[in-house]
Amino acid sequence: MPSADSLALAESLIVSIPDYPERGIVFRDITPLLADAAGLRTAIDALIAPFAGTFDVVAGVEARGFLLAGAVAITAGVGLVPVRKAGKLPRPAASVAYALEYGEATIEVHDDIAPGTRVLLVDDVLATGGTLAAAHELFAVLGQTVVGTAVLMEIAGLGGRELVSDVHAVFQG
Amino acid sequence: MPSADSLALAESLIVSIPDYPERGIVFRDITPLLADAAGLRTAIDALIAPFAGTFDVVAGVEARGFLLAGAVAITAGVGLVPVRKAGKLPRPAASVAYALEYGEATIEVHDDIAPGTRVLLVDDVLATGGTLAAAHELFAVLGQTVVGTAVLMEIAGLGGRELVSDVHAVFQG
Repeated sequence: MPSADSLALAESLIVSIPDYPERGIVFRDITPLLADAAGLRTAIDALIAPFAGTFDVVAGVEARGFLLAGAVAITAGVGLVPVRKAGKLPRPAASVAYALEYGEATIEVHDDIAPGTRVLLVDDVLATGGTLAAAHELFAVLGQTVVGTAVLMEIAGLGGRELVSDVHAVFQG
Repeated sequence: MPSADSLALAESLIVSIPDYPERGIVFRDITPLLADAAGLRTAIDALIAPFAGTFDVVAGVEARGFLLAGAVAITAGVGLVPVRKAGKLPRPAASVAYALEYGEATIEVHDDIAPGTRVLLVDDVLATGGTLAAAHELFAVLGQTVVGTAVLMEIAGLGGRELVSDVHAVFQG
């Protein structure tokens, strides 16, 4: 686990953007943190610290989750599985639809890993938790075991933790 | 650089999907390679081997390029910059439009790195090269230096190398 000082330094690189993507929402922009080699390293180490040795692959949620999942895979020495929006994968083995504020969305995954494989789910932010809860369902359909969910930032007060109870968040937004 | 045997093993994990996304096209699906810990490691090492020590950050092109760029960033110990489709970044510093087969697309980037920073561009596949050529332009606008382009696979005969002359491809598709 990185030191408190490294974590504070990494957190200071996250930028708050008021009224984005809409009025009244403060968007937490992690790209300056990712662009900093030391900050990125700290963030990835903190993301996976509680899960060391417990997972065989990391699954990243499109699109920002892909950036983190690639970094986690190499750090932990495991394989990498993308969870994609519907229509992006040539041979989806499972699809799960979930509700958005307006309408719904669907995510899909290939079955490139064996049943029983232990999966760590990774995304940048936990907000309402809809996508990450659907991702749990995706792997359950394929008989794979989600050992936990790791996010860089949890936005409190949106109910995410009720839907995704196994979440570990590096920072609170 | 990984051994020829490791590379052959990694390449054998890439799946060909006939008539996807449309009739007559053979889609080269890299997800089984990514899902294999050893295959992923081999692919990332081969991707960056020619560029060791020449770049300060890696830039990944949305979306599959993000998976590789995250892995490259940790392996090389550098920062990570996402090149995103228009409308996905809260404070785009540069935008470049480019032609598609039908219509056009725009990509954008933040300016989280200083002018003069040396950038390695990463994507999964070089096909026509339109997106990667536009990405070169993005960084040129911001005064940053693209030191090269690394892709997992080059699809020959589509003119990509004419547009992106600095490309290094691990596999030929």
